[in-house]
Amino acid sequence: MTEPLRVTYRLDVPVDQVGDLAAALAIEQTIEFPPEAVDDPQVTTQAQGWVETVEAGPDGAPHATIAVPPDVVAGQLPQLLNVLWGNASLHPRVRLVGVTLPPAVLDCFPGPLFGVGGLRAATGVRGRPLLLTAVKPMGLPVQRLAHLAGRCAAAGVDLVKDDHGLADQPWAPFADRVGRLADAVARANARHGTCCVYAPSLNAPAGLLTERAVTARDAGAGALLVLPGLYGWPALQPLADVGLPLLAHPAGMGGWTRGVAAPVVFGTLARLAGADMSIFLVDGGRFPVPPEEADAVAAACHAPLDGIAPCLPCAGGGVTVANGERLRRRFGDDCALLVGGDLHRGADGLEARVAALRAALT
Amino acid sequence: MTEPLRVTYRLDVPVDQVGDLAAALAIEQTIEFPPEAVDDPQVTTQAQGWVETVEAGPDGAPHATIAVPPDVVAGQLPQLLNVLWGNASLHPRVRLVGVTLPPAVLDCFPGPLFGVGGLRAATGVRGRPLLLTAVKPMGLPVQRLAHLAGRCAAAGVDLVKDDHGLADQPWAPFADRVGRLADAVARANARHGTCCVYAPSLNAPAGLLTERAVTARDAGAGALLVLPGLYGWPALQPLADVGLPLLAHPAGMGGWTRGVAAPVVFGTLARLAGADMSIFLVDGGRFPVPPEEADAVAAACHAPLDGIAPCLPCAGGGVTVANGERLRRRFGDDCALLVGGDLHRGADGLEARVAALRAALT
Repeated sequence: MTEPLRVTYRLDVPVDQVGDLAAALAIEQTIEFPPEAVDDPQVTTQAQGWVETVEAGPDGAPHATIAVPPDVVAGQLPQLLNVLWGNASLHPRVRLVGVTLPPAVLDCFPGPLFGVGGLRAATGVRGRPLLLTAVKPMGLPVQRLAHLAGRCAAAGVDLVKDDHGLADQPWAPFADRVGRLADAVARANARHGTCCVYAPSLNAPAGLLTERAVTARDAGAGALLVLPGLYGWPALQPLADVGLPLLAHPAGMGGWTRGVAAPVVFGTLARLAGADMSIFLVDGGRFPVPPEEADAVAAACHAPLDGIAPCLPCAGGGVTVANGERLRRRFGDDCALLVGGDLHRGADGLEARVAALRAALT
Repeated sequence: MTEPLRVTYRLDVPVDQVGDLAAALAIEQTIEFPPEAVDDPQVTTQAQGWVETVEAGPDGAPHATIAVPPDVVAGQLPQLLNVLWGNASLHPRVRLVGVTLPPAVLDCFPGPLFGVGGLRAATGVRGRPLLLTAVKPMGLPVQRLAHLAGRCAAAGVDLVKDDHGLADQPWAPFADRVGRLADAVARANARHGTCCVYAPSLNAPAGLLTERAVTARDAGAGALLVLPGLYGWPALQPLADVGLPLLAHPAGMGGWTRGVAAPVVFGTLARLAGADMSIFLVDGGRFPVPPEEADAVAAACHAPLDGIAPCLPCAGGGVTVANGERLRRRFGDDCALLVGGDLHRGADGLEARVAALRAALT
C-alpha cells in the first residue's frame, strides 16, 4: 500500500474518552460519514483515515496519530490543510502537534523557490544573519517613508520591508508608495555600494494581490511581504509565480498557533506554501513565547523535508539592537533578525544603531 | 473627529498587568512603533490607536476597548482583519470579544449580495428553514455522487452541497464532478417539480478558485461552497463577483474561534466578507459547543449592521433528523439546517428520512 500521511494530535480529554475521540477524528478528517453506512469498499480503502497509535506524548498527554491515504489530499495545499486541521480545528480540546508527509504528497509541492540561497544572493550577505527592518510608523506620508527606507539601506540594513499594516491608507497609498520606496532604496544602494532589498507589503483585497505583486516587481521591489495569517497559506502560491522571494509575516497567525504547534506552522506549513523567509516570534520580545518553541521553529525551517528546500527563519516580535549578538549565537548564521522600533529608540540615531548591530552580526 | 472603530479584547492576565497590556495593544494594532519616538504629529492623530476603556466585562474578566481611526483600515477587509486581530492574535492571553464599526468603515463593504432573500428566491423556500445536505462520503466515484445528489433533490432537500473535502481526488475530479452533479440535480428538479440548488465545493489551489467558480456557474451550480477558514476571509470577495450565493463552511475556522468570539467570526466577519450563508456549529452534535454560543451566533447573523445585509445562519456539525424540529423552534424560520451523515443512518432510507425532516420543518 502507498505510504499514508501521518498526523499527530494531542487530545486534552479524560483518558476514557481518548480512544473514541481518536477514532472520531480519523473519520472527521476524511470521509466524515458514519462508517457503518458506507456501502462501497473503495471508500474505506482509498479515502478513510484510521487510528495508527494512541500513546503518551513527550509532554505526558495522550497523542493520537491518524493515518490518511495520500490520494485524499489530491496533491493540493488547501485540501492538505483541510485534512490536517479543517474540522479538527473546531474541537477545542484537540491540538495538532506533528505531521509526517510521504513522498507521494511532498512531491506535489515545489516549496520555497528562492530559499536561503536565493535570499543570500539577492542581498549579497554571506556568513552572517540577514538584518531586516520595517519602514514605519503607519501615518507617515510617502515622502518620509521613502526617506527612511533610503536611510536604512545606506546604513547597512539588508532588507527593508513595509510595515505589514501599510495597505492603501489615504496618506500613503500603495500605487504612490511602492515606486518611491523602491527608488529610494536603489539610490542608496548606488551611492553607498550597498545591496539592500525592498519588500513592499501586499495588504490589499485578495483579487488585487497578484496585480500588486507584479507592480511591485516592475517598480524594483526585490521581495514581497505576504500575510498568510490573514489570506491563508494557499494565497502564497500564485504570488510565488511572480518571481520574487516571499517573506511570510505572522500577523493573524495566532489563528494557527493557538491550536497547532509553532514548528509545524512557521516551519512545515510555511515551506509547503512556498515562503522563502518565515518571520516567527522570539522570546524576550513583546510576545510571551517559550524559548524552546522559538528554537524548535528555527530548526523546523531548516529540517530535512524530502525535496522541499529550507526557508530562512527570521526572529521578530521585539528583537533589539542589544540582543542581536545573543540571537546570532543562538540561531547561527543561517537566520535573519527583524529589528523594528528599536532602531528608532535612544539618542544615538538610526545609523549608529544599525552600525552597532551589523558589527555584532559580522 | 470621525468616529473610530472600537475593538474589545478580554485580557487574561493578572490585574496589575491589564493597563499596560491594553496600552501595548493600542500601539501593536496600529502604529507598532515606540510612541516616544514618533516625530510627526500626523502619525498620532491619524493612525495611532488608543485605549478607550478598561473595565470588567460581563464575564467578570478585564475587557479593554481600543479605538482606532477609521482611515487606518483603508476600507479594505484584509487590513480591517489585521487591525482587529493581526498581531493581537499572537498574544495567547488576548481574546477578541467585540467589534463596533462606524459607518465610515461599514460603507466600504458590500456585505452579502444575495443574503437571506436571495437564498429563499433560489430555493423557492418560504416560511420554514432551508434543508441542506452534503454529497459524501469522499471516495465514491462521480457516478455514485451524482446519483446521490439526484436522490437528495428528488426527496426534497433544498440545497445539496459537495462535502467540503471533495477537491480533485483521482476518483472524482472536479472537472468531471461538477457538471454531472449539477445535471443530476437539474434532472431531479425537472422530474419532481423540486427546486433544489447544487453547490460544489471550491477546494482547489487559490489561483484556480475563480476559474472553478465560473466553471461551476456555467455548468448549472446555483451556489458555491467556500472555505474561509482555509483560504482566509478575503478570498470570498472575488468569488462573490462570479454571481452565485456563497455558503461559508467552517473547516479550519477553529483558527479564528480559538481566539475570537464565535458571533464575531460566524456573524460579523462572515457578513463583512460577503457570505450569504454561514454554517456554524450547534451544540448537541459532534463538537463541544456551549448552547449560548450557538444562540449568539445565529443572532449575530441577523443583527442590524448598518447597511450590511444579514446572512442565513446554518446549524451544522452533527444535526440529526430527530432534532430538526427542536432546532426550528429554537432558531426560528430564518435559518438553515445542514444534515449530513444522519440522513444515511438507520433502515428507513434516505427518502423517508428527508420526508420526516421536511414534515418537521413545515
